[in-house]
Amino acid sequence: MTYHTPSSDPGANAMLQRASECGVDTVWDRYQAQQPQCGFGSLGLCCRNCWKGPCRIDPFGDGPRYGICGADRDTIVARQLVRMMAAGGAAHSEHGRHIALTLLEMADGKAPDYQIRDEAKLMAVAAKLGIPTTDRAVMDVVRDVARISLEDFQNQDADTGAHWLQATLTQRRLKRLHDVGVLAHNIDATIAGVLARTHVGCDADATNVVLGGVRAAMADYDGMTLATELSDILFGTPKPVVTAANLGVIKPSAVNIAVNGHNPLLSDVVCDIALEMQDEARAAGAKDGINIVGICCTGNEVMVRHGIPLATNYLSQEMAVLTGALDAMVVDVQCIMPSLPRVAACFHTQVITTMAENKIPGAVHVPFTTEHAKDAARKIIRMAIGAFGRRDPKAVRIPDVKHTAIVGFSAEAIVGALSLLDADDPLKPLIDNVVNGNIKGVCLFAGCNNTQSTQDQSFQVIAKKLAAQNVLLLATGCGAACFAKHGLMTSEATEKYAGPGLKAVLTAIGKAAGLGAPLPLVLHMGSCVDNSRAVAVAVALANKLGVDLSELPVVACAPEAMSEKAVAIGTWSVALGLPTLIGTVPQITGSKAVVDLVTEGVKEVFGGYFLVDPNPETAADKLLAAIEERRAGLGL
Amino acid sequence: MTYHTPSSDPGANAMLQRASECGVDTVWDRYQAQQPQCGFGSLGLCCRNCWKGPCRIDPFGDGPRYGICGADRDTIVARQLVRMMAAGGAAHSEHGRHIALTLLEMADGKAPDYQIRDEAKLMAVAAKLGIPTTDRAVMDVVRDVARISLEDFQNQDADTGAHWLQATLTQRRLKRLHDVGVLAHNIDATIAGVLARTHVGCDADATNVVLGGVRAAMADYDGMTLATELSDILFGTPKPVVTAANLGVIKPSAVNIAVNGHNPLLSDVVCDIALEMQDEARAAGAKDGINIVGICCTGNEVMVRHGIPLATNYLSQEMAVLTGALDAMVVDVQCIMPSLPRVAACFHTQVITTMAENKIPGAVHVPFTTEHAKDAARKIIRMAIGAFGRRDPKAVRIPDVKHTAIVGFSAEAIVGALSLLDADDPLKPLIDNVVNGNIKGVCLFAGCNNTQSTQDQSFQVIAKKLAAQNVLLLATGCGAACFAKHGLMTSEATEKYAGPGLKAVLTAIGKAAGLGAPLPLVLHMGSCVDNSRAVAVAVALANKLGVDLSELPVVACAPEAMSEKAVAIGTWSVALGLPTLIGTVPQITGSKAVVDLVTEGVKEVFGGYFLVDPNPETAADKLLAAIEERRAGLGL
Repeated sequence: MTYHTPSSDPGANAMLQRASECGVDTVWDRYQAQQPQCGFGSLGLCCRNCWKGPCRIDPFGDGPRYGICGADRDTIVARQLVRMMAAGGAAHSEHGRHIALTLLEMADGKAPDYQIRDEAKLMAVAAKLGIPTTDRAVMDVVRDVARISLEDFQNQDADTGAHWLQATLTQRRLKRLHDVGVLAHNIDATIAGVLARTHVGCDADATNVVLGGVRAAMADYDGMTLATELSDILFGTPKPVVTAANLGVIKPSAVNIAVNGHNPLLSDVVCDIALEMQDEARAAGAKDGINIVGICCTGNEVMVRHGIPLATNYLSQEMAVLTGALDAMVVDVQCIMPSLPRVAACFHTQVITTMAENKIPGAVHVPFTTEHAKDAARKIIRMAIGAFGRRDPKAVRIPDVKHTAIVGFSAEAIVGALSLLDADDPLKPLIDNVVNGNIKGVCLFAGCNNTQSTQDQSFQVIAKKLAAQNVLLLATGCGAACFAKHGLMTSEATEKYAGPGLKAVLTAIGKAAGLGAPLPLVLHMGSCVDNSRAVAVAVALANKLGVDLSELPVVACAPEAMSEKAVAIGTWSVALGLPTLIGTVPQITGSKAVVDLVTEGVKEVFGGYFLVDPNPETAADKLLAAIEERRAGLGL
Repeated sequence: MTYHTPSSDPGANAMLQRASECGVDTVWDRYQAQQPQCGFGSLGLCCRNCWKGPCRIDPFGDGPRYGICGADRDTIVARQLVRMMAAGGAAHSEHGRHIALTLLEMADGKAPDYQIRDEAKLMAVAAKLGIPTTDRAVMDVVRDVARISLEDFQNQDADTGAHWLQATLTQRRLKRLHDVGVLAHNIDATIAGVLARTHVGCDADATNVVLGGVRAAMADYDGMTLATELSDILFGTPKPVVTAANLGVIKPSAVNIAVNGHNPLLSDVVCDIALEMQDEARAAGAKDGINIVGICCTGNEVMVRHGIPLATNYLSQEMAVLTGALDAMVVDVQCIMPSLPRVAACFHTQVITTMAENKIPGAVHVPFTTEHAKDAARKIIRMAIGAFGRRDPKAVRIPDVKHTAIVGFSAEAIVGALSLLDADDPLKPLIDNVVNGNIKGVCLFAGCNNTQSTQDQSFQVIAKKLAAQNVLLLATGCGAACFAKHGLMTSEATEKYAGPGLKAVLTAIGKAAGLGAPLPLVLHMGSCVDNSRAVAVAVALANKLGVDLSELPVVACAPEAMSEKAVAIGTWSVALGLPTLIGTVPQITGSKAVVDLVTEGVKEVFGGYFLVDPNPETAADKLLAAIEERRAGLGL
């Protein structure tokens, strides 16, 4: 059907068959229809930044070497790349701003449907931001936290780094970022600045352009960090919880509501309200009541916080509809396929958009505001119950694919688990085990799904290979969802795939935690906006060891990087000093200068660098080599 | 050489011949080399917003109808369009922010090389923004003006329109913009919001997407308005001045320095310092001393304020180098061809970049800071004097093409001229003449040059046709430069081309002003960022008449729209209620829904709408018809 196996996920594959029966087009059909994809665009050699264009550079050097304005291949590739970074940063940060504004409303008594679920986190965040907490009313602290976070969207002094950067990175890293001119001062201004400098006739120096993009990527880190930390205050900091993943979590006898997108502001309330409305669902004939399931990162958000089961990740979101048993899919922002209403039209499923800035033709729009969140949630659930009554039982095909997943490993949860081994010095056991080689290093799996390769496959191949070599595995976003869906977030997976050193450590912690079994092979840290959680762990380690992030045996890996957010995340990962592997060939190969810069040149500047390898076997080798190099640097 | 005559400018054409002799590629060679241009991109049917793509929709409906994510043609076209609006807004606004920050530095004593050149304007601006001025130190007023302007980059309350919007538009227009959700509250946030909502899997409703873009376009208006108004405070409000334009302003016996780009912060200081360094240039053998000439909108800025002659506009900027007599070209931001150093390499010309965010390979970079502006200016002029010594007299070919141009018609200057007819009620003569039909209406010519049509031609054809029908003509940016270069900013042009009614009015004002001749046929209002000046005139008229902007017989016209800034300007022009003609086919024709929306659907919402016509003859007819329709609406 496509040029490669569409998915390695048996749940998704079962539904592909169903799509074919129903005559429904899916993402993989559209992928096939788009072949061959434009070579100019794939190489980054197409420029559409003004109406003299489109301009295209001949990759072989026989045709045009310059755009009409005179921009060369390097300028064109760099511009396109950094605009992706800026857009990724904008997406994450808009999410962050939404949370910060909600906290501010709450402090002013205008968000009655929300509460502080984690006051300890609030106080920890306040302390990190230098906000006094002693003898103060909680809402005064909330207001200050919100205001200082919003200052990261407002500060006009380009020389002063944003608060959240300053609060969460090592001093040496902050100095380096500042020296290179990429310590973002203001999220919005940095993003707008990237657009301005890539306007026709502006920055034509590819290196300078890319550094502008790195600054936007640091703004992305800032925005996603505050999104995560403030979300924890509102909705709770994730703690280990046992749940399940893959399409089998959809229940035949329940009103099934999928929450899809990224922002927990509505989905968290939907989870609460669903508990209140179970009887209404049962009265409508759903003997198992309301079953909320997650998709993509909204799914991850409610999974790591509340143990809500996860139906699937990005690329297979249409498959959830194809089960015929989904009564509503409520979407918020980002990575929501606009095809969903077309697929849903073949069933009874109600696709519901909720955000004013994110509508989809064919979906019903239920306006969500933080002032009336519970009302929106009630309305949505009632629509789902109504749709349940229209479900055609004969059209239901729920694949019998479901795995247990132990999830919820926030930085706090990881430190909490370690403190069971050493209450006075929780990081010591981790460091000791890194030093003695039981743990070789740490790899953060992040990023998306991409039709360019078999869904979820590279994640698994790389993870198993690294685990066998005793690399501790963290995961977020669609990567984390992949591992959950495939049973790699279990103690059994640790028993089966972890090398002896890693297994010993995970077992010791698991036993100390009363699990009676090892921690899971891959630790689910949350949604893609939660990549900052992994940075928090790395920064704690670096500070403890007195080194910078670029010296740690910590690497990042996004084998199916797809979205502009992923481009931004990968870039700040490199800027923070991490060797960062992507399995998708980035659309920059039309410029040797840019390729050399991001894979080699940046090493000297940031310590981190991009590794590119679509082959998961050799990709894993490269990550291991990078870890070994870092270990050698530390004399390990 | 190209598919159509490259330019209608005899100066540029003379140099094209020279380029050919020298074997130098110019923008028109590159245009030719790019033919045929990509049809998908030209129709807006190419999406590169994620790494699943590039995706392309088959315009004929035989191939793919959807991108891999499921986005349809309407979504894809709308996304690309609004990202252009956002980028245009970012470019203008970055310029505005730079000026505002300079005022703030000045108030804090940190910009010693700047001064308040127009205190009356400062006070007028303060009054407009609601800032008290009585008995206050000037620098305190400056600080407040700067701070309130910067709040337009900071305000986080999405329901409160930005200060400069509120200060400069009619109440009815503000209400309408607010009701539709496009009254921008914060420039940066609105721009970042456009990127966020066009990220993969976000807003898929084309109308909703376009409205998000309109909000960014209103942010663009806000940013450019404050850029213009604050620049006047720093550098003086333009007043009529007689100067000259076209390549013939370059002098064989002078050190010729071209200032190119958009932001007057450095170029204005260069003009000042040049006066101090005339002897140094003469000592180096330049008997005519230093000759500053302008290119593109930096050229317009110093032209309308200080009568600096204008060498050329955007598309022919390389031609200035080809004269062989340009010793330095100092560039700041926007619309600077990255090819300049390659052309300059054939001569002695020194291309000098000055802004940290805008470098060009092959140029020398002289860092400009507002703290040390004069030092940078001195260094640059000294480099030009040095280059003069390396000039090869045998390579000099300055075309004998130069026209007088009476320029400097700020809103204040126009009202000032009208007040010579009626000191108590300056707008009355204008309104009376519109009512009695001596003046049929007003047309603002704006926007760029574009290789898609013969440079400068449509501007002239349309202007002459409208003038013959008694339409008052205003112009900014590369449009204004076109008219200056071609001798249409003279009394003679008025005598020759204006209809009897218009001629009578322009003659009456000209005589009252002591010109002894009519005002020029086209009034030069400044650079492209100065389009807000035309709005100021229209708002004054609307307020006086008690109508909204959408009822006035005022139209806008950008026959060679090219840059993302032009896309933003055109959009706010429509949102303000003006029929707005573009002569470049916008890259949206792949979506009938988007085309219908911007040419028809918006009428109902904003009153304004886009007219598209590359043929200048019929374009002029459409503008005249739109003016007549508005007159009829007013009962005229």
